[in-house]
Amino acid sequence: MVAQEEIKEIEKLFDRLFPICRSITGPGLRESLDILGEYIPLERFSVKTGTNLLNNWVVPEEWRIYEAWLKGPDGEKIVDFSDHNLHVVNYSIPVDKKLSLTELKDYLYTIPDLPEAIPYVTSYYKRRWGFCMRHKTYEKLKEGEYHAYINSELLDGQLDYGHAILPGQTDREILISTYLCHPSMANNELSGPLVATFLYNRLKKWQNRRFTYRFIFIPETIGAIAYLHRFGTNLKEKLYSGLVLTCLGGETRLNYKLTKRGDAPVDKVVKHFFKDKYLENLNIPNGHIRDFIPLYGSDERHYCSAGFNFPVGQMARLVYGYPEYHTSLDNKELITIKSLNQSINDIEKVLKGLELNGYYINQYPYGEIKLDQYNLYPNINFSKNGNKDKFNDIDINGRQFSQILTLLSYADGTNSLIKIAEKNEEWFKDKRFNWNILEFEYVINILKEKGLLKGPYFKEEVEPIWK
Amino acid sequence: MVAQEEIKEIEKLFDRLFPICRSITGPGLRESLDILGEYIPLERFSVKTGTNLLNNWVVPEEWRIYEAWLKGPDGEKIVDFSDHNLHVVNYSIPVDKKLSLTELKDYLYTIPDLPEAIPYVTSYYKRRWGFCMRHKTYEKLKEGEYHAYINSELLDGQLDYGHAILPGQTDREILISTYLCHPSMANNELSGPLVATFLYNRLKKWQNRRFTYRFIFIPETIGAIAYLHRFGTNLKEKLYSGLVLTCLGGETRLNYKLTKRGDAPVDKVVKHFFKDKYLENLNIPNGHIRDFIPLYGSDERHYCSAGFNFPVGQMARLVYGYPEYHTSLDNKELITIKSLNQSINDIEKVLKGLELNGYYINQYPYGEIKLDQYNLYPNINFSKNGNKDKFNDIDINGRQFSQILTLLSYADGTNSLIKIAEKNEEWFKDKRFNWNILEFEYVINILKEKGLLKGPYFKEEVEPIWK
Amino acid sequence: MVAQEEIKEIEKLFDRLFPICRSITGPGLRESLDILGEYIPLERFSVKTGTNLLNNWVVPEEWRIYEAWLKGPDGEKIVDFSDHNLHVVNYSIPVDKKLSLTELKDYLYTIPDLPEAIPYVTSYYKRRWGFCMRHKTYEKLKEGEYHAYINSELLDGQLDYGHAILPGQTDREILISTYLCHPSMANNELSGPLVATFLYNRLKKWQNRRFTYRFIFIPETIGAIAYLHRFGTNLKEKLYSGLVLTCLGGETRLNYKLTKRGDAPVDKVVKHFFKDKYLENLNIPNGHIRDFIPLYGSDERHYCSAGFNFPVGQMARLVYGYPEYHTSLDNKELITIKSLNQSINDIEKVLKGLELNGYYINQYPYGEIKLDQYNLYPNINFSKNGNKDKFNDIDINGRQFSQILTLLSYADGTNSLIKIAEKNEEWFKDKRFNWNILEFEYVINILKEKGLLKGPYFKEEVEPIWK
Repeated sequence: MVAQEEIKEIEKLFDRLFPICRSITGPGLRESLDILGEYIPLERFSVKTGTNLLNNWVVPEEWRIYEAWLKGPDGEKIVDFSDHNLHVVNYSIPVDKKLSLTELKDYLYTIPDLPEAIPYVTSYYKRRWGFCMRHKTYEKLKEGEYHAYINSELLDGQLDYGHAILPGQTDREILISTYLCHPSMANNELSGPLVATFLYNRLKKWQNRRFTYRFIFIPETIGAIAYLHRFGTNLKEKLYSGLVLTCLGGETRLNYKLTKRGDAPVDKVVKHFFKDKYLENLNIPNGHIRDFIPLYGSDERHYCSAGFNFPVGQMARLVYGYPEYHTSLDNKELITIKSLNQSINDIEKVLKGLELNGYYINQYPYGEIKLDQYNLYPNINFSKNGNKDKFNDIDINGRQFSQILTLLSYADGTNSLIKIAEKNEEWFKDKRFNWNILEFEYVINILKEKGLLKGPYFKEEVEPIWK
Repeated sequence: MVAQEEIKEIEKLFDRLFPICRSITGPGLRESLDILGEYIPLERFSVKTGTNLLNNWVVPEEWRIYEAWLKGPDGEKIVDFSDHNLHVVNYSIPVDKKLSLTELKDYLYTIPDLPEAIPYVTSYYKRRWGFCMRHKTYEKLKEGEYHAYINSELLDGQLDYGHAILPGQTDREILISTYLCHPSMANNELSGPLVATFLYNRLKKWQNRRFTYRFIFIPETIGAIAYLHRFGTNLKEKLYSGLVLTCLGGETRLNYKLTKRGDAPVDKVVKHFFKDKYLENLNIPNGHIRDFIPLYGSDERHYCSAGFNFPVGQMARLVYGYPEYHTSLDNKELITIKSLNQSINDIEKVLKGLELNGYYINQYPYGEIKLDQYNLYPNINFSKNGNKDKFNDIDINGRQFSQILTLLSYADGTNSLIKIAEKNEEWFKDKRFNWNILEFEYVINILKEKGLLKGPYFKEEVEPIWK
Repeated sequence: MVAQEEIKEIEKLFDRLFPICRSITGPGLRESLDILGEYIPLERFSVKTGTNLLNNWVVPEEWRIYEAWLKGPDGEKIVDFSDHNLHVVNYSIPVDKKLSLTELKDYLYTIPDLPEAIPYVTSYYKRRWGFCMRHKTYEKLKEGEYHAYINSELLDGQLDYGHAILPGQTDREILISTYLCHPSMANNELSGPLVATFLYNRLKKWQNRRFTYRFIFIPETIGAIAYLHRFGTNLKEKLYSGLVLTCLGGETRLNYKLTKRGDAPVDKVVKHFFKDKYLENLNIPNGHIRDFIPLYGSDERHYCSAGFNFPVGQMARLVYGYPEYHTSLDNKELITIKSLNQSINDIEKVLKGLELNGYYINQYPYGEIKLDQYNLYPNINFSKNGNKDKFNDIDINGRQFSQILTLLSYADGTNSLIKIAEKNEEWFKDKRFNWNILEFEYVINILKEKGLLKGPYFKEEVEPIWK
């Protein structure tokens, strides 16, 4: 798909999903999963209210909301759920009550510093009701009797989620997890499910997939708990690495949160990519790297919890902490659809890096290979015209020749491709010499075709060949 | 005991011990051990002259001294042992001899750069006699016949030492070793035995002791050799960590000498405490850290010798190398009794750190715990008034909440409490966020009470729970 | 041998070897090996043309050259092989042809930037003929008919090489490898075989050799492949460490290329020596350290190839990359014979370091040894005249005393001599305190004589004595 077409497709899907009032349970969540199911083969799961999950979690009652408004002393609607679904505290119990302004204020939520923003407030596990409004509206409220009306239900229902699995050559898995439980907000959260959906379709088109890819769409926290309750053991066996996708909009650099281990496969690829030296190399995704911090974030906190410690990082762009976060100002203008497309491009490359990285084995490792036999070595020791002449008659240029010598020397079962690619950094200060693993693909393919190299293998599959 | 009372008690004991003429053997040593026995339940040991000890050491003859003086040409006493016991070379053989000033000078010891100081000279293993005096006295000596008189004995006797053992929940031991063999000097050495004695009584009052504490009082070097000869194998089995106490007076910061391993439990605690970021946190002992250097020091040289390599460091305050060291100027004014009290406080905290550090295990490790059930998590995602509001209804504040999340995430059997506490350093530059393990005690106790956490365990007791 | 005599001997050998037209095979190589055989007991080997070697290498045809010249339009000889053997492309096929200047130019090689230099050109595996000449000659060539005449042969013959083995106390081997295949050039290559030859005779005179030394003389690349084909398995078993010797002339510092492992025994010794702090200590060889880079270099690329990964580094002085490299300007004036003598001195010390480094064991490790019994410890704790007095009566000075205490404390089976010697660096900033392992030899010998120390052992022979 050409970029422009894909951007149009993303926008179409965005516009369908944005208005829906999602929560961690309920019809909004189900409708959103239905729509995603039109794009990818989503397998659906549901767990009943009251089901015991991991640790001490239980599936809560399902929340449904039909109508909600607040009328002022003059009978005019101050806020209306049908105008913006953020106006109601998510999981509000039903109410139909008249109260004075003073009484009412306990149930009102605003952000004085952002008078134009409706805040996003939730109270999943403590029964509450409330309205969220722009502070500039709040400031104009006058004394008198108010009518608060919320027509909602908390009832025995279910928790819904889905996943789509894209098989590969091995059953080692890459987990791509994103969440679907926020009402009308764009960066947090629609960016995540949108990027995941289109990423799935990119990977589907790859000719080879070394890994099996597991895309999961869950309500945040309780959905991760439910998913781990059902699939945790399975993941423990097969998981190779993974990413939580969140906050992937915004015209800014990527922002990656390390796994708790800090040395998971995805950490290694991202650390290899996100280097200043690549800033001018527009083929390599770049960004900022954050430590794993359990104090905030998303479902990586569960994937990386003490008992799982999965090799799962988190990829974001305009990461939580921005002023519009969790407000009505987190909208389409804030993110731009183009940036979602960029996130898909970037994350696809990170996954490409995961595919490519690994342990390669030189098939003729005793002394250097006589490369001129393979048309990979100059047949004279002298060049009349700089290095160029020497390479005139062979299949590669000088830079690729250097990659080949480096690769064959270090492909001994002890060095990952990243480690080999980064040898150059140790040797030369000059950034022009630096190689990224994506730039090795060409010579790897040549050497594999000529029978000189095999790989990539997993670490546990190889031994130092010189031992 | 209130600080002021303890200071008075320390001073009382100081004043009784200071005047005694100690040496590595003899009545002064025995008398000193007797006095300490009034304060703590000291078990006493003695080894006979001529007994073979470790390596090639043998218990020397016991030294006793009764009287000693040097008379000048006019019959006046130039120096008298009864004025100051440093006036006689420690272990001097008896002498009763008249000599010219020129002859005498071979037997006189002074410090020209410190004309007011009587130096401390010993010759335990080579037979010598001599007098030590202030250089200003020495300079006034005039020609004529002098009378040197030392009434001393070197005889078959014994080497004395003692220890006091404070049992704990496990038989893993903490060694507190200090030496008792110097005549009237305050910092080196009386500070050591005084601090050890009062420290024993502090620890006796602790409600729980994870470790068994072994306090030993020995003459330096030969006493350590004798102690290791008898108890070395026992220590090899049970020793967890330990400290040699020396030079603990003076209005200056602590000064810690690492064990030879450099990563012993006590090294880790002291390194965790002695950080610049804690300089303004008066609850955390602070000071300077020295490398283990075998070229000088005290009995840690034996505990850390090639064949033992015990995890024993050395804690000092005004450490050897100060001008008054090994002279009569090393006295009560130099040290201040208050600083001894401070040393007791500080070392007690280091031991508290040893007790607290270790491996904790999250009892509900699969995903985050649903902490709101335990009144440890805010029940709303929004705060009208900064973070404060969200924590109004629960048992902890925001800082403690962060400690809990960090602890539960990392309490997986692979991270010591120190490592967990120092995670914060990796995450935040802002010093205010830094935590010391002593500051975790409150939340650890809450989590243990609620059944969410167990520990501390020793490293060998735990395995990564995610494996 | 006095330095001046050795320098004369080196020059004599240089003058015999320099004029010979060597190549990777042929009579020039054999004659050169014959001459070296007069100096050291060289065992000779040969492999027939067409023999399959490692990987995909085959012994090429042997090259012999008898006569070669290029005549100009006026019949005068423009270049003549008998003037300088670099004038002919090495491995040129025979030719006897008349051509125009334009036709001829395809067969001429010059260096425009170095108009005085005849370049060194080879084409071992692709059939070619050609002449190399000074660019200033080339520029004067006028139009007309030229006569190119090369009387050479490529025939079934053999590849020659040799080695000389110097046995030691153990069969662990040190490999010294140098190459012999370049025509008349001085730094690259005659410096290597010359240094190796005289180094052999130095080592022969050592009273003890812990290691067996294997000196090998081979044509570069194909010779290394042939040697590894025959002796590779043997080396894999016995090799302890080694050096490729190349480019060892020139009035400049040493220049060492690390092994691919980077932590081989020879790497450790060279890193220990080549420190700025030793720059003023003329007893310690000094120089620059390069990374192992497989992109260029000499036979270390084969020794360190993926399947061998031998602990072999490369020692050079004026290392390849200098302007005169591979030209007729690489001659006796460039290198100076004195610098070859310096290289022999330096490399002998590196080998001495390899002999000396290892694991020593304190024979009385439980507590400090009572060193005064061995006349190694002052018998009084006081010095009237600085530290000097205290050491007046004993066998060592204060610096050696510090070395002894350090050595005995750390000689526990876990610390190599280098690690022990470098403890000082950790302790003291003052460079005067820094010790080199060569400076420990004196006290090691004293301690060994007195029965207090044993060693050096190999790492696999020792265990931590405190465990």
